[in-house]
Amino acid sequence: MSIEIKKHIRNVPDFPKKGIMFRDITTLLKNPNSFQLAFEQLYAQTNGLMIDKVVGIESRGFIFGAMLAEHLNAGFVPMRKPGKLPAETEKEFYDLEYGKDSIEIHKDAIRPGEKVLIHDDLLATGGTAKAAINLVEKLGGEVVCILFLVELSFLNGREKLQGYNVKSLVDYTSE
Amino acid sequence: MSIEIKKHIRNVPDFPKKGIMFRDITTLLKNPNSFQLAFEQLYAQTNGLMIDKVVGIESRGFIFGAMLAEHLNAGFVPMRKPGKLPAETEKEFYDLEYGKDSIEIHKDAIRPGEKVLIHDDLLATGGTAKAAINLVEKLGGEVVCILFLVELSFLNGREKLQGYNVKSLVDYTSE
Repeated sequence: MSIEIKKHIRNVPDFPKKGIMFRDITTLLKNPNSFQLAFEQLYAQTNGLMIDKVVGIESRGFIFGAMLAEHLNAGFVPMRKPGKLPAETEKEFYDLEYGKDSIEIHKDAIRPGEKVLIHDDLLATGGTAKAAINLVEKLGGEVVCILFLVELSFLNGREKLQGYNVKSLVDYTSE
Repeated sequence: MSIEIKKHIRNVPDFPKKGIMFRDITTLLKNPNSFQLAFEQLYAQTNGLMIDKVVGIESRGFIFGAMLAEHLNAGFVPMRKPGKLPAETEKEFYDLEYGKDSIEIHKDAIRPGEKVLIHDDLLATGGTAKAAINLVEKLGGEVVCILFLVELSFLNGREKLQGYNVKSLVDYTSE
């Protein structure tokens, strides 16, 4: 758990709706020192892993996801909201508090047997991350790490990701 | 103009609608070699510039934008679609083919006098880029470079950006 990173994250009450404390990483990103430090600590979590593709989940997962791909000498694969990717896609639905949402990946983004790191900025309920795992596995990829900047452990997202190598830098144990 | 980069970009006809040839950079991103090469060539365009903040435009502008910020020892600032940024924002509207859209930036993202590089993957009509310039200048920032991966010069986007330092790696002169 990184105290140094956490103090650069801003707490915004009642966003996106009343009663939610939003953990805002833009204050961390805009400061060159905390931005570099957060990246170094994320990258350190990948120590020794051979990665062919880094999957970044739209849209905040693109930020550190692309940087991780560069430093790992991997390709970068954007996993996007429906209708954004122009070629043939696989789609996976996941549950929201009310209703469903979905994400997509290009069918040719990952080849069978490739080792994949999935990155998103936030692990909340784990619904998006589980959908991302399913998509990578549909394409024959092997999910070797799921790496988050921030985890809201009081939402028990890790329960949906059992059996996988899940890492995060910063944890919030309560709302 | 980079031929080597261009050959990694996929042409997808009739996306997002009939008659549009979509220039798909996901094929470039997923290949570690072309991904690194494109980044190196983008970064080379910033030669000698002192940059305090890199603004990346949601969401594909986050990819190389974050990498540029890291290598320039700058902060990274996401410029986002309306309603996504949790703290106090400035908003700017721009014209679409039919109707209007808008983008937002946090008011505290840039301090007066800071030198700013704006990055997006695509320069099309220039509407989004001009709105991005206006937002940076509203906050007192100085736009020292606007850097694109792909330019569709037949849409004359540069006309909206006159007087600014506009650069792109790859140009398409016709649909």
